[in-house]
Parts: sequence; C-alpha cells; structure tokens
Amino acid sequence: MILTSEKTDMSIFEQLESEVRSYCRSFPTVFEKAKGYKLWDREGREYIDFFAGAGALNYGHNNSRMKEKLIEYLSSDGVIHSLDMATSAKESFLRRFHDVILKPRNLEYKVMFPGPTGTNTVESALKLARKVTGRDTVVSFTRAFHGMTLGSLAVTGNAFKRKGAGIPLTHSVSLPYDQYDEHVDSLTLLERYLEDKGSGMDLPAAVILETVQGEGGINVASSEWLKQVEQICRRHGVLLIVDDVQAGCGRTGTYFSFEPAGIKPDIVCLSKSLSGYGLPFAITLIRPDLDEWGPGEHNGTFRGHNLAFVAATEALNFWETDDFAKEIQRKGEKVRTNLERIAEKHSSQNGEVRGRGLMLGISFPQEGFAEEVCKEAFKRGLIMETAGPDSEVAKLLPPLTIDDEGLEKGLSILDESVEAASRSLL
Amino acid sequence: MILTSEKTDMSIFEQLESEVRSYCRSFPTVFEKAKGYKLWDREGREYIDFFAGAGALNYGHNNSRMKEKLIEYLSSDGVIHSLDMATSAKESFLRRFHDVILKPRNLEYKVMFPGPTGTNTVESALKLARKVTGRDTVVSFTRAFHGMTLGSLAVTGNAFKRKGAGIPLTHSVSLPYDQYDEHVDSLTLLERYLEDKGSGMDLPAAVILETVQGEGGINVASSEWLKQVEQICRRHGVLLIVDDVQAGCGRTGTYFSFEPAGIKPDIVCLSKSLSGYGLPFAITLIRPDLDEWGPGEHNGTFRGHNLAFVAATEALNFWETDDFAKEIQRKGEKVRTNLERIAEKHSSQNGEVRGRGLMLGISFPQEGFAEEVCKEAFKRGLIMETAGPDSEVAKLLPPLTIDDEGLEKGLSILDESVEAASRSLL
Amino acid sequence: MILTSEKTDMSIFEQLESEVRSYCRSFPTVFEKAKGYKLWDREGREYIDFFAGAGALNYGHNNSRMKEKLIEYLSSDGVIHSLDMATSAKESFLRRFHDVILKPRNLEYKVMFPGPTGTNTVESALKLARKVTGRDTVVSFTRAFHGMTLGSLAVTGNAFKRKGAGIPLTHSVSLPYDQYDEHVDSLTLLERYLEDKGSGMDLPAAVILETVQGEGGINVASSEWLKQVEQICRRHGVLLIVDDVQAGCGRTGTYFSFEPAGIKPDIVCLSKSLSGYGLPFAITLIRPDLDEWGPGEHNGTFRGHNLAFVAATEALNFWETDDFAKEIQRKGEKVRTNLERIAEKHSSQNGEVRGRGLMLGISFPQEGFAEEVCKEAFKRGLIMETAGPDSEVAKLLPPLTIDDEGLEKGLSILDESVEAASRSLL
Amino acid sequence: MILTSEKTDMSIFEQLESEVRSYCRSFPTVFEKAKGYKLWDREGREYIDFFAGAGALNYGHNNSRMKEKLIEYLSSDGVIHSLDMATSAKESFLRRFHDVILKPRNLEYKVMFPGPTGTNTVESALKLARKVTGRDTVVSFTRAFHGMTLGSLAVTGNAFKRKGAGIPLTHSVSLPYDQYDEHVDSLTLLERYLEDKGSGMDLPAAVILETVQGEGGINVASSEWLKQVEQICRRHGVLLIVDDVQAGCGRTGTYFSFEPAGIKPDIVCLSKSLSGYGLPFAITLIRPDLDEWGPGEHNGTFRGHNLAFVAATEALNFWETDDFAKEIQRKGEKVRTNLERIAEKHSSQNGEVRGRGLMLGISFPQEGFAEEVCKEAFKRGLIMETAGPDSEVAKLLPPLTIDDEGLEKGLSILDESVEAASRSLL
Repeated sequence: MILTSEKTDMSIFEQLESEVRSYCRSFPTVFEKAKGYKLWDREGREYIDFFAGAGALNYGHNNSRMKEKLIEYLSSDGVIHSLDMATSAKESFLRRFHDVILKPRNLEYKVMFPGPTGTNTVESALKLARKVTGRDTVVSFTRAFHGMTLGSLAVTGNAFKRKGAGIPLTHSVSLPYDQYDEHVDSLTLLERYLEDKGSGMDLPAAVILETVQGEGGINVASSEWLKQVEQICRRHGVLLIVDDVQAGCGRTGTYFSFEPAGIKPDIVCLSKSLSGYGLPFAITLIRPDLDEWGPGEHNGTFRGHNLAFVAATEALNFWETDDFAKEIQRKGEKVRTNLERIAEKHSSQNGEVRGRGLMLGISFPQEGFAEEVCKEAFKRGLIMETAGPDSEVAKLLPPLTIDDEGLEKGLSILDESVEAASRSLL
Repeated sequence: MILTSEKTDMSIFEQLESEVRSYCRSFPTVFEKAKGYKLWDREGREYIDFFAGAGALNYGHNNSRMKEKLIEYLSSDGVIHSLDMATSAKESFLRRFHDVILKPRNLEYKVMFPGPTGTNTVESALKLARKVTGRDTVVSFTRAFHGMTLGSLAVTGNAFKRKGAGIPLTHSVSLPYDQYDEHVDSLTLLERYLEDKGSGMDLPAAVILETVQGEGGINVASSEWLKQVEQICRRHGVLLIVDDVQAGCGRTGTYFSFEPAGIKPDIVCLSKSLSGYGLPFAITLIRPDLDEWGPGEHNGTFRGHNLAFVAATEALNFWETDDFAKEIQRKGEKVRTNLERIAEKHSSQNGEVRGRGLMLGISFPQEGFAEEVCKEAFKRGLIMETAGPDSEVAKLLPPLTIDDEGLEKGLSILDESVEAASRSLL
Repeated sequence: MILTSEKTDMSIFEQLESEVRSYCRSFPTVFEKAKGYKLWDREGREYIDFFAGAGALNYGHNNSRMKEKLIEYLSSDGVIHSLDMATSAKESFLRRFHDVILKPRNLEYKVMFPGPTGTNTVESALKLARKVTGRDTVVSFTRAFHGMTLGSLAVTGNAFKRKGAGIPLTHSVSLPYDQYDEHVDSLTLLERYLEDKGSGMDLPAAVILETVQGEGGINVASSEWLKQVEQICRRHGVLLIVDDVQAGCGRTGTYFSFEPAGIKPDIVCLSKSLSGYGLPFAITLIRPDLDEWGPGEHNGTFRGHNLAFVAATEALNFWETDDFAKEIQRKGEKVRTNLERIAEKHSSQNGEVRGRGLMLGISFPQEGFAEEVCKEAFKRGLIMETAGPDSEVAKLLPPLTIDDEGLEKGLSILDESVEAASRSLL
Repeated sequence: MILTSEKTDMSIFEQLESEVRSYCRSFPTVFEKAKGYKLWDREGREYIDFFAGAGALNYGHNNSRMKEKLIEYLSSDGVIHSLDMATSAKESFLRRFHDVILKPRNLEYKVMFPGPTGTNTVESALKLARKVTGRDTVVSFTRAFHGMTLGSLAVTGNAFKRKGAGIPLTHSVSLPYDQYDEHVDSLTLLERYLEDKGSGMDLPAAVILETVQGEGGINVASSEWLKQVEQICRRHGVLLIVDDVQAGCGRTGTYFSFEPAGIKPDIVCLSKSLSGYGLPFAITLIRPDLDEWGPGEHNGTFRGHNLAFVAATEALNFWETDDFAKEIQRKGEKVRTNLERIAEKHSSQNGEVRGRGLMLGISFPQEGFAEEVCKEAFKRGLIMETAGPDSEVAKLLPPLTIDDEGLEKGLSILDESVEAASRSLL
C-alpha cells in the first residue's frame, strides 16, 4: 500500500475558493479519474473510496451502463434542461420509478421534483407539511442532519452548522432520538409532549427523521422505535416525514431505509444516489391526499435535470429483483464482522461498531481519534470520513457495488490506520 | 406556422407527478430534442424557445462545443461527483473564471460552491451576511424573487409563493424597488429607514437585489439607482448582495448585470446559465475580507458537479473578447424596437415594453391578457412565459446565441399571438 | 424662580436600584408631595409639572374628589384586589364608562381588562387581532411607541428600546407615518403594499397607530390621514387598532384622540390617565363581533385593581358635559401661541412647534438642545422631558386641569430655559 | 353553612365586558367587601377565601396596618404616580427590602421596577438575560406559567393560553420539569442537551422556572432538583431565573420559595403579594454584574406606583423575625394533613395531595371532578380554584395570615364539597 508522499499543488483552491471548502482539506490532492470503487488523483495515485460521495455514489463511480446512456442521450441532443416541462426522459423515469420501486412495495406516492439537492426536498417536505396542517412546529431529533438552507437547518442538530445561519432557528423542537440516553425514554417523551396540554410544545405539523443518522454519527433507530413513532404520529394527526436522502437508495440494505420497519411515511425525501451517477437530483414523495400544492407554489430552475433522469432510470435496473438488496446485506454483514474484529483487536480504543447495511462506522471515544484514523487511511490510499457532533465516528460508506476484494483491501487499510492512529495519539 | 392540434398524452404526469407541476400545464406536450433556440416534441413539432429555461440556457440548447467536452469528459471517466474535494475540472473552472471574468473586471472575489441551485447561493449569501455582521434583518425589494427555501423565500415578494412556506417569513424587510411608485422615492425611504433611530427597521445585515427583476415582471433598476443603493449601503455599513441568478451570465448585455452601473457588490449570487448547458450549478462570490466561513459551515452533496464545471469552463470562451456582449446588446435593441412596434400596433392593449439586453417583456394591463398571448404563442410554436405578481407581463428570454432569423420568426409569432389574444379576450 | 442648588442625596437609588432607572437621572431629587400641577421634593422645593406622569396625570396630582372616594373605599374595606371577579366598584366603572363615554359617542365596544399597564392592553389587542384574522403581521409606523414587552416592542420604532429585546423582533412591518418624509406618500405606500401581490408584505392582521405620537416626538397625524388609513384598512379587511394610551383620556382635546377624525377603530387601547389618579389601569375596547376570546385566554393578576376602578369612575365626571374638552382646547391654543412666540424669539434655534390639544412640543434641530432646555427648566423648577428618537423635542404634557396661572408660570420658565440653553450650547 | 340561592344580577358584566372574563363565571356574584380571609358579596353572603387573589393576597384582604398607612399617605398628598423618579416612598421601600429581605439572606441584587405586573417582571428578566448573554433561546419547563405578553407566553406551557398569541411562539425550549415522567430523567436531559453539540438546542441565555408550579397544577420541584439545575446552569454559563411571582412572598413557607434549596438565582421575579395589599407591583432582582441595562432601556408608565411602595414597605414588617415563616409552615402542615385525610376519606377519587407551605392542592384524575369540587365549594361559601392543564387540581391558596378557625372552616367545606362532587359526578 503506497503512502502519499509528494505534496500536491492545492494553491489555486487556496487562492480562489472560499474558506468554507472542507473535504479538500481532509483529502489534499486533486482528483482526476474515477471508476467503480476507485479514484485516481492527478499524480496517478489510486484510492479506494469508502466515502462514495457521502452516499451519493451507491452504484460506484461512472457506472458503465449509465455512462453509455448519458453519452447516447447527449449525442442525440435530448432535452437537457426542462424546468418542469414534460420530457420523454422524465416520463421514463416516472414510469420506471413507479413500476420498479413504488408498486412492488405497495406505496402510493405522488412524485414532486423540488430542485435537485437534499436540502431542497427537505424544504419542500417541511413547507407542505406546514401548509397542509396549518401548524408551524416540526419535531426533529437530536443529531439530525437535514440540510443547510434555513428551513432544513432549523431541524438539524449540529451546533456548528446551526451557528452558520446567523439568525435564531425557529419553528422546530428537537427531541431525543432512539437510544439517545438510557435515562430518557424517547418514545414516552414524544407521546407525553403531544398529549399533554401543558407540555409547552405546540402540536406539530410533522415529525422528521432519518432511520439511520449519517452525519449525526451512524445512529440506528430500531424498527420497533420507528413503528412506535409512526403510531404516535397517527394518534395525534402529525405527519411523518422520512428523510431518506442518505440512508435511502439501498444504502441500508433495502431501497427505502424504512422498509424493514414496515412503516409508511406520509412524505419521503430522496436525493444523493437517486440519479445513480452522482448527478444532482432529488424527489419528494407525497401521500396523494396531502398533495395540496398549487401549480408552481414551490419551484426551481433545475427541477428538470434530464441527464439525472436518464441515469436514474438506468439505475433502477438494479432493483428489478431483490438480488441487489441481498448482496448489500451480505456485504454489510461482512464489513460489520470485520469492523468488530478491528475494534476488538484495538480494544484499548473502546471502539463501538454502529450502523446498518453498508452504512457503518466505529465510534471512538478518544477525542480526535477517528479523525486521525481517517488521516492515516488517506495516506494509505483509502478515502473515508468522520461523522458525529465531535467527529467521533469513523464512517464507512463504500459503494454498494464494490466487490469483496475491494472491501477487503479497504478494511485492511482501515485496520492499519487504526493501528497507526493508536501509535500517533499515544 | 403550425398550430398544435393533436392532443399529447400527458397522463403519466397527471397520474404520478405532484400538483405542484406548472410549466407542463402551460406547454402541454412532451419534449424530446433540443438544439440552439429550438425544441422538438415527441410528435416532431418544432418550437422556437423564447424562454430558455427561465434564463438557464443563455447559450441555447445543447451547444456543440460544450456537448463535445461533456462527452469527452464522460468517456474518459473523469470524476463526476466530488463533493468539495479538489478535481482537475474544478481547478480549470476556478482558473478560467478568475482569468476571463473576475480579473478583467477588476473584481476580487472568493468563490464559494454552495449547492447547485439559485436558492442555495442566495441562502449562503444571506447566512454569511448575517453571520459576518451579527445582524438579522435583510432588506429586499418589492417584486423580488430569490428562491423557494425558507431563507430565500423570506426575501421574495410574491404572496402566493410566500404562502407556501406555511409559517411566517421573518428577518426581512421589503422596501420599494426603483420606480415602484411615483409618489414614493425609494432611495429616500431606504436612507431614512437606515439613518432614523426611530424608523422601526433594525440596522440590516444586507440589502439584496436583482438589477432587473425577472419573475417580478421585468422591472429594471436604473444605474443611478443602483449606484445610490450601493452608496447608502456603504454609508451605513450594510452589505450589498446582488442576486444575478437570472440577470447574470450575459442576459442583460454584460456578464454581470451590474457592470453598467459601475458598482461592486459585497456578495454576488450566480447560477442558471453558469454551467452553460443547463446543468445545475451555482456559485457565491464573496468579498475576500468577508470570507469568514469555517470549513464546512455551509455544505451540500452536489457542490462538486464536475459536468457543470466542464461545460461552464467551455462557456467562458464566449467572454474572452467583448464581441459576445456587443451582439447581445445589438439583438436586445432589435427586439426592443420590434416589441415597441408590436405594442404600438395593438395600442388598445396599452402594452408597455420593459427590460434590458435580452431580458425583455411587454406588460399588458388587462387581466389575463399576457397569459392569453403566451397561450396563443405556444399554439403557434413559440415558447414564452409570463412574469409579474399578476402574470401581467409577456416575458422574452431568447437564448443569447439566437440568430436574427430566429428572433424575427419568434417576434412574428408574438405579433400574431397578441392579435389573436386581442380577438379572443374581446 | 429658585434654581436648585443643594445636592439631594440619591445614594440609595444608586446603590440599590438597577441601572435601568432613568427619570431620576433627569430630575435628581427625591419627591415627596404633590397636588394639582405641583410637586414638592424632600427639601421643600416646589416644581411645576409639565410632564404629568408622561400623560398618566391628566387630572393633575391627587385630585381632591378622587382622593376622597379612594379613602372612603379603603375605609369601608371595599374589595381591593379581585382578579376578574365581579365587584361593585368594577360594575360602577363599567356602567359609567358606557354611559358617559361610549354611548354619547355612538361607540359600541366590549371592555376587556387586560392587566393594568399600557403594554398589556397593546399585547391583548395584538393577540386578539392575530387570533381573529389568522394572520401574523401587524403594520405599525415609524416613530411608534407601544410598549416594552415583546409583542408591543415589535411594533415600536425606537432602535435603542428594540435592542433591549435581545432577540429579533418579528411579525411586524414599520411603514412611514403621516408626513414622515415629503418624498414618500405614506398612504400610497400603505395601500400599494396591501393591494400588490408582489409587495413582500403579507396581508396584515391589523394596523396599529397613535394619532399623536408622544414618545416618537409629538408627531400629529392629520384627520384626513387617519380617515384614509381607516378606509384602506376597511378595503383590505385589516383591523385598525388605535393605541390611545398617551393621547387618549382628553390629552388632545377630546376623550378619544381619534374623535375629530370621525373614525371608529376596531380596537382601542387605553391606560395612563384612565384611573385619573395615576393608579395602574388599562382597558382594551373591542368591536363586539371581534370579541372571540375564550374565558381566561388572556389573563393577569391585576386585572381587578378596584382602587383604580373607584378613581376612574370619579374621573368620568369630568366628561359629563363638553366643558372640560373645550377648556383643554382653549388651553392648548394658549400654550401653542406661547410656544410659537418662544420659538420665534429664539429663532436661531429653528424650533418647530408641534402637537395637538395639550400634547405639545418644540423640536430643536441642534443635537442635545432640547435636553439642555429640560435640564435648565428643572433647575428653575419646571419638570418637562424630551421626546423623539434623538431626544430632539422638548415636550409639554401639563395636567389638563392646570389653571392659566400655572401655564403662564411654566411657559415663562420654559422661555428662560431656552434662553439659557442657547447660551450654554453656543 | 349557607348555600347561595338567589341569583345575582351579572347582566352588566355580560353586556359590557369581554368574553375573556373568567373568574366571574366560576364565582357568579358581585363582591363588595373584604377583610382578612373573608369576602362578602352585595347580598351580604360571606365567603372564605382559599384563593387569595391567586396568591396576590398572602397577607389577607385589607390588612389594617397597611390600610392605615395607605390612608395616611393619601391624606398627606404623598406622590402617587412617579414613573421612575425618586420618591420618599420608593426610597423607604428600597431600604427596607434591602434590610429585611436581601441582607439577612445574604443576597445581593439590584432592584429593577419593570412595570407593576408579573408578566412585566418576567419580560424584563428574559430581555436582560438575552441581552447580557447575546443568546436567544430560553429554557422553560413543562406546565410552566410565566405570563400573557408575548415573551412570557413563549415560556408558558399551557396550549390554550399559547394559542391566544395568534402567532408561533419562538426562542424558547420546553424541557421536562422535576418528576414530569418516571421514564424521563429531566436533569439528565437538560445536561445532555447543553453539553451535546448535536442536541439541536442552541446554548440558551437562561433557564426560567417556578420552584412550585401554581397554574401548572401545584407541581413541586425538590430541593435536590433545584440545586442540580443551578449547578448545570453554572457549568454551562447559563443564567438561572426564578419566577417567584406566585410562590414567593412567603407562600411556600419562606420569603423566597428557593431558600430551602439553598440556591442563588441570577435573576428573580417578584410580584403578586409584593405590595401586600393586592396593589399592582412587581420587581426584578438582578445579580449586580448582570445589570447592564442602559437608562430607560426597559420602561413603563406605572413603574412608580407609590401606594404599592407604601403597603409593601409595611408588609415587610411580617418578615422582621422568622415567626411568620414558622407559622406558615405550621399551617401548611396542618392543611396538608387535612387534605390527606380528605383524600383518604374519598379514596375512590384517587386524589393526590401536592404542594409546599400554603400552596397546596389535591389532584383528581376524573375529568371535571376538581372543577365540580370548586363549584360545590362556592355554593357553600368557599372560594377556591382549579389548576393544571386539564383543570385537574383543586388548589388551596389561603391567606398566610388566616387563623386556625378559618382554615378548619374552609377545610370542612372542602370535605363536604368533595363529597357532593362525588355524588353529582357518579
């Protein structure tokens, strides 16, 4: 395994790009090429990608079939940008999404194209929930991450991100997530707050949640907890929004992350891996009777990004049978076993393995340890990032399409990196 | 000129897509192919495009040089999705944008990649302005349109769009735009409100404006007014944000719409035609000393959309000399002259020509008239839309690259459509 | 006229009272006794009172008939504190207020007892207006003063007071008051903002205004302006709230300040001189069909302050005929004539006389001049204060019951004080 | 014991007073006279007062010594209304309050006069805490009641009262009070939310609490809990505000309700029984180094209510020794024993005795039962009210000065009333 040595010239970015830039600080090199689970930088160094665009590249980089379709579409001068006009590419996507995803799962949703990013779909979901119920409060959970625009940020837990708003974030109540603290029963609290006329929490329009919190530290809500939350919402006439931007599109082992729990959210937010090729794309799924939007009441210039429709339609082929889901689950188990082995091997670090499907992580209590692990991994050609409010979790989001060899190589580097971090932070 | 007759099958959209869909109602057909200033639907009907993706297609559909670059990049498995990691494609864009756009205009800005849509750049601008100044209020103007997420929507004037938020929109003050009303001197009011300790308007973080309001009805702020606003802002330590999402990238005859006014905004928002090919892309330009972001304080999954970098870099070639700008101005004059002729010809409709560069419109006082004009135009194979709070303006946003023949054809259809609308609304 | 010389011991106040104390800094002496338009301090110095408790002592200090009634009530062990239970004293007040004030003026209002201060009545008015209309925005005017609790403060113009909230003040829009600026037609702006669907001002629940702004600098709204505001409100279904806390109870020459304009506000706020004896008391008058409060939906411990009911009932005797109103108007004219004479005499100070009835002032453009005048006046035994966002107005609020001798003495001191201020600020 | 029979004429109130009136519905008679723990209505019926002005009459009605002082002050034409000018009466109060209350308890506070009601002192406390810390959030607790103006209402738990605001109530977070739910450790949750950078709760300016929640249902916080809350606040630099409006002035057995816990709040709110005679009065006690108010930054017309100063100064005599406190405690025990006996006697009602000192209640789980008890009590000449979000608690707030005979009579009626309620709600 090569350790990066020559210093890449990052000066253009330092001179011209805002201080807000972030991952280019963790991975200080200039990337040029990508395929499957691999990336290459300008100097030709190869990297294994256990980050996968923060979950936007579930099908790996530059999938050949999608690439072919994209080039074909471009070559034929298909409509590229169409606002929310009808195009053949959009029609195909709608049809396939309905046939391959919604229908077999017995889900009836209207599809909204809210602007092609995660925060846009979350904003559209929050707006609709408030508009339909006539209420203003939305309940979110500790450690939640829903996006950076004002509405989404108000339901996001991270203090550093919240501070960036520059104004108080309102109309949201943050309640404890599943297993937040052993001394606090989160379901009891949610229900008490809803039923108690003196709780001080106004009846909310909606509860918004991630079934597995990615940015928040790979926290997994149990199926039982999700079911209970759904039932509590139903009892009180509160809408349930699942933000499946990161955990959806197969990441946790099923297309929607909430399938194992058997719940049916009122609104679902999808983005990241939706286009399959890393292209900006997002949709909001809406229970039909809640679809009270007026025409154009929420709009946006890039609602009609046809290259994304094309790739997304192709990506749906992965879901025609349940083979793909089974493979994710198998690989997920494999990685989990390995992580547990690594945690045990370096047991003095008290690493705790977390996650579901191929959305996994090891939480390390020592301050800065997880960050050091990722740093050492990068030196060894493995790209992975931390999560959690204190960056305390080393997070693994390999492409779902990765082969066993790739997984093993990456895990082996991770093992070495934990070892190296243990030494350097002694 | 053909009048659309056979009814296109739109049923998939009606069944599966949310009621929020809008333009597919105005243009009820399924588009399939596009090139330059033309679109073709599934039945092979041809349309002249005077809408240009609401300003996202300034260089026309599927520009051949950009298309070539995109296919080349895809073929070579260049990195497509990179979050805010460094890539060669991003580096090239940064370098070219600096060399071709910023440097020659004597503008020093740090470039922020805030998520690839207009509302994302506006949100990032508002957040930064508030964070840096420690103030919460932002002044916007009547008829302003800045986006659909909560922060942007709070500085947007349109009552119907605002209603969609479902909650009160706060921390913003809407003041009269240039020439809003002859009995109200907007500059006096702005300055009085800032200097008067009893005005009831808290000292704002920023003033945000469009130099030409697109969605608001093609309202043009004079250079003198813009200069005065800048000076008032300077005097009171208030930041000036220009939202150049629609009016920028050459639409009004210069790259930035504020160039003729000779002002230097503290923050500039760009999107729409930035990628040149209709791909989602946005940047926020920041006066360097205001770049107080912490790493990752604002983030987003699709900040690194490399196809957009590739096309955008190619698009900058249009701006190497000032020939392109001159051509826009020439065509703008031509269209304006024609619009005035049309207005005069149908003088009973009291049409008023508005706009700057190739961002033009005719305002018709009769309720529903402009909408009827657009409807008649569509029947005749011309795509154009209305603007203004009462949809009272027939708006023209042809591709900047359109040739004279295309312009003439389109204008001729417009003329017929005004005629037809006059008859049908008699 | 004596000039205060010996320094009073204010140390207890400096040691024990909060820095928020204010008037005891302007009038640094310990007051002990009061009668009519006079105050005496502990050292026996006599002061003419042209401040009248900021308008809370319209009937002068310690009116003999009211005093008698109060002592009688106390002696008989009448109920003093009754929350909102029914008491004989409250019944008498309600009956008399209806018979003497409402009925002869053809006003039908339900009376609400909202807590005994100005800000409480304003808060109750704002809450009701929002609740009844289901809207959140309230329009207030530049230089408005409505109180210090969060709801009232949000519709108050003064930047220093607003800052004290410690949080952004929202759900209010401040528009220009009558004659705010010659280049801004305030009525046009109000109406445009209401009718324009793109104005960025959400349809408000109510417009709240003072017919004469006291704290804001003795700004007088013309009857024509008030009538127009009422009509604009009616046309748009917006409620009109008149905050008559300072200008009401006869201060401007009629019981309600809005009588000369012939308008009928939907809600009226009264306090200050309502009890007649300077006792805490406030009522909110509500158009009967708007009285949608649930029992106890707004409450407060001191809604039933029976001493205030007793004095207030007695005070209503002043209003049985219109003699008292005529006297106020006569004295108002007398004072105005004198003020104009003083302004003319010291014409280099460019003093501008303002006001209506016995709510008058001279505005001096020189920074600090009005404050100096009040300081000099205090030295000479005259109590008066400044108003306006820059304390630029020397304000006169003598008791309405003052005799001509008192007025003349006070005005003569004022004259000397302007002279002295001119010398000292040369 | 007489049962009220003849129907009192309440028509004036029904005709002229707003629907918001409340207690006059529970106690439908016109009161005329009061002394000690007794009230008499117009028909001469006598009532025992176990309500004591919702805690505003801790020293009973019309205390003879205070009455004498008030009449004396009125007779001598002492200054009645003084804004925040210095008066002898105010000086005496400040001095006595310092000597009798603050100094012996080793408390150093600056005294602020914020306007004479409970909600005014709470608003001033919230404003100061936010201003001083530069933070916007305030933590309050479930079932809290802090007042009806917007700032206070936002930290009040009751859904019905909150609804009255007509707008969303923001900048506050409601956390579980002591013993809110056995499955939720309220202290753990408070601390976790403060220390967790991903909790979604912004670092608050302050925590505001009542040590015994009156309106919320006579919920008692343990000393241990209060101590822990104080320590948590200290650890995180969060201010602690105790709203002692209802529980203070001796109600729970010590002057301040927080004395037994040994805590020192940063800000204390006092009102209700502060004047001793039921006169409107409130103060805010401020830790000296937090006294960052500018002069007049918070003001109000009735800050200088000198009759209240006079009575309040006299009332302080009760506190010169600790005899009075001991008596309250003794009577509190007596009443508690009796309530437990009553609860046991009617054990099928599952009544639960709550409270501390002479702030007591019985909670009855059956819907409407506590209300029925109070109704029956009124018929028998006993005035008492319910508390709690579902009016589920029959609350006892007898005057602290009541003698044993009065207590016994009242308790005996209560016993009968529970009996009667049991029968009628069978």
